Amino acid sequence: MVTKKGPPHLVPVHEHHYGIVRTLRCKNQMVPGTLGRLASAIGAAGANIGNIQTVQLGYHNVIRDIDITIDDDAHLDRVLKSIAQLEVTQVLEVRDEVLQVHQNGKIKMVSTYPVQSVGDLRKVYTPGVAQVCNMVRKDPALKYEYTSIASNVAIVTDGTAVLGLGDIGPVAGMPVMEGKAMLLQQLVGLNGIPVLLNTQDTDEIVRTVKAISPAFCAVQLEDISAPRCFDVLARLEKELDIPVMQDDQQGTAVVALAAVINACGITRKDMHKVKIGQVGLGAAGLSVAEMLYKYTGNPVLGVARSAASCERHVQRGGIASSLHEIMETCDIVVALSTVKGLIKPEMVTPGQIIFALSNPDPEIEPNVAKEAGAELAADGRAVNNILGYPGIWRGVADSRAKKLNQEMLMAAAEAIVRTTDPGELISQPLNPAVHRAVAKAVAKAAMTSGVAGRTLDEDYFEN
Amino acid sequence: MVTKKGPPHLVPVHEHHYGIVRTLRCKNQMVPGTLGRLASAIGAAGANIGNIQTVQLGYHNVIRDIDITIDDDAHLDRVLKSIAQLEVTQVLEVRDEVLQVHQNGKIKMVSTYPVQSVGDLRKVYTPGVAQVCNMVRKDPALKYEYTSIASNVAIVTDGTAVLGLGDIGPVAGMPVMEGKAMLLQQLVGLNGIPVLLNTQDTDEIVRTVKAISPAFCAVQLEDISAPRCFDVLARLEKELDIPVMQDDQQGTAVVALAAVINACGITRKDMHKVKIGQVGLGAAGLSVAEMLYKYTGNPVLGVARSAASCERHVQRGGIASSLHEIMETCDIVVALSTVKGLIKPEMVTPGQIIFALSNPDPEIEPNVAKEAGAELAADGRAVNNILGYPGIWRGVADSRAKKLNQEMLMAAAEAIVRTTDPGELISQPLNPAVHRAVAKAVAKAAMTSGVAGRTLDEDYFEN
Repeated sequence: MVTKKGPPHLVPVHEHHYGIVRTLRCKNQMVPGTLGRLASAIGAAGANIGNIQTVQLGYHNVIRDIDITIDDDAHLDRVLKSIAQLEVTQVLEVRDEVLQVHQNGKIKMVSTYPVQSVGDLRKVYTPGVAQVCNMVRKDPALKYEYTSIASNVAIVTDGTAVLGLGDIGPVAGMPVMEGKAMLLQQLVGLNGIPVLLNTQDTDEIVRTVKAISPAFCAVQLEDISAPRCFDVLARLEKELDIPVMQDDQQGTAVVALAAVINACGITRKDMHKVKIGQVGLGAAGLSVAEMLYKYTGNPVLGVARSAASCERHVQRGGIASSLHEIMETCDIVVALSTVKGLIKPEMVTPGQIIFALSNPDPEIEPNVAKEAGAELAADGRAVNNILGYPGIWRGVADSRAKKLNQEMLMAAAEAIVRTTDPGELISQPLNPAVHRAVAKAVAKAAMTSGVAGRTLDEDYFEN
Repeated sequence: MVTKKGPPHLVPVHEHHYGIVRTLRCKNQMVPGTLGRLASAIGAAGANIGNIQTVQLGYHNVIRDIDITIDDDAHLDRVLKSIAQLEVTQVLEVRDEVLQVHQNGKIKMVSTYPVQSVGDLRKVYTPGVAQVCNMVRKDPALKYEYTSIASNVAIVTDGTAVLGLGDIGPVAGMPVMEGKAMLLQQLVGLNGIPVLLNTQDTDEIVRTVKAISPAFCAVQLEDISAPRCFDVLARLEKELDIPVMQDDQQGTAVVALAAVINACGITRKDMHKVKIGQVGLGAAGLSVAEMLYKYTGNPVLGVARSAASCERHVQRGGIASSLHEIMETCDIVVALSTVKGLIKPEMVTPGQIIFALSNPDPEIEPNVAKEAGAELAADGRAVNNILGYPGIWRGVADSRAKKLNQEMLMAAAEAIVRTTDPGELISQPLNPAVHRAVAKAVAKAAMTSGVAGRTLDEDYFEN
């Protein structure tokens, strides 16, 4: 928790429709029902409520910090006006805790061993370190024992397709990369190392990642825009001797596959018999379609604005289709088009499963889709990539896998399915058990598919 | 402290003459003088003693862990035999604590903020992070506020000149890079990020470092062999908008300069009037000679095996000389030749100051040099690079310096001199006050020489 109290820090109105988070410090009268009325007032103004923390509990008043998500400053004004109509509460301040959390960055590189004496220094550094260097030189596999390489994952971006924000450059993308790195450490204990590329040239990206690859056990590509990302991934997969994954491609596909499997479970559809359509064939869409095809064995109908995207889809075993055909004939529709409201209520076929996954604005709001007859509908919040990459890399690190293959990705998806509570669409991303399950499944698949660098014993899989 | 007890882990005999460290667990009789006799027995076998920790204190016995530095396993046998002759002590086990310290690497990337709830997740990651990304995109200088870039130092090596071990490759060099990184965090709170290059091509190294530079506030080149390292440094200095330093070059020069200034103080020599000679003109030697020249204004006599090295020395304002001339005529001799025993006792001129800095074996042992008439003599242990780079980078980070210039390097050397205890040759590397003093001096010099990215106020320099 960040306790530092910042000044009310209001940033300019946002061009992109991505929610911003503010913290309202509210002084409520100690009257039953006050929090309910306050929450209702916030809800009435169209804001979402996040964490609520009790700051001070008095005889007459209680002070609480309430996180809210709003669209922009105008929206904040509406929320504050809505609250002002209540007699029982008073907003003491509006804080931007998000900025406080990001202050000075969210990750740091620390030692695992405190150097407290010259004796320590002589162990971690010269002369002691020379012995370790010589051992690794003689037997390079000892890098897994005596260096951090076994736990280092490069998180590589050129900043061209960050979140829904687009080409904002690698430096502006750093807060996202740090977010990925902090979760990697916290959820599975691996070291995420952000690598910011100041080139967008495919050859140069491939060359650079290859040149710095010795320090890592895996490479996670992030937010590199299509179509360059396909080439970058394919070439690195071929040329590196460590696994590579673009989170927007395979990461999204793994989590989407898990959600679709769960959706079929909930709606008692046979996933291997249903007709699936993919709307939008960018980095994520194309990869989701391919994963669904490989998992079910049935080609996926796909549609995209660009002919090149459709061509890539067909090359990967898909069927070129139209939005009309997909909405009319498919049992399951997955949309990753980035087009808000692309799917109109009248297009929905009764009984359909609809995943409108574009962030921050879905192709159709889940409640609208359901009103229009969809049996099950979800938006991007249901498919959180955080469920995928941490466990996948932990499994790769544990098995010292040289490649990341479809078997491992599918095993990851199935592990997410197994850890999903009955009736839920997807597991909770902050539950460590999910990531442990994914890691074990991925390590197992690496071993059985012949890409593991070592054989893990039963202890690993049982504990 | 590592408490994990490992099995006696004996590694094969070392080809390189670099000491290895072992920990002897000894059970001593509780008789006054026992430890003294034990220490003498170890010393008699030619081993150095490091930390001694009391593990267990009983009525009749005391168990202690004693770190010793030895040459190889045969040397260890001699030490154990020497101890076996004592009746009052018994070696319970021989441990390799160095290996334990290096187990799984010595650094890790951690979060600065615990993500404990979905609310936290929405602050550090989507949707909250989008606001921070947009702010940095609009005002790139905010990267210093809201990302770790302001504290990230790349530690870049191709592994071609690691310690005294030579071209052992980047992966085998990783334990050294991690050592540098852990000290960077512990001494000055910066994030050292090891970058291991699998290329030795100058163009490719320059291109790669440039391509990944956006994530860093500084680049530390490490253990890249001469002569490539000169070109790599010069080109990166020119082409990057963040400071670059090769620790073997400028880092060594800064600490050597400080040691020479202190030596002149101890021996009451006027540094600006003495004649200085440099033996060995590799990456370190050339840079030391240049630094001494720039600091004193007097050209330094230099000698090296290769004509190209001598040429570089002359290009940088030095005078080509011979070992004979230097030993015969110079008041101060600095040797960085990598040739053990290069300086014979009969070459020493009475009253000379001799720094025989090659590691692990000096050109002449300090006691031998003193016996031969040197007024002051020191070896590589006196010039520890750890005194330089942490404070230099802290000053760079604090001042947001765009370049690292001679003014800053000399200010660093003078700060080391100011923090040296009277009569000592150099400061203690684990004393945080030294690194704070260096940081302030470097930041100040960055400001006055016009390369600082911001102006620090008096508070910074006073506290």
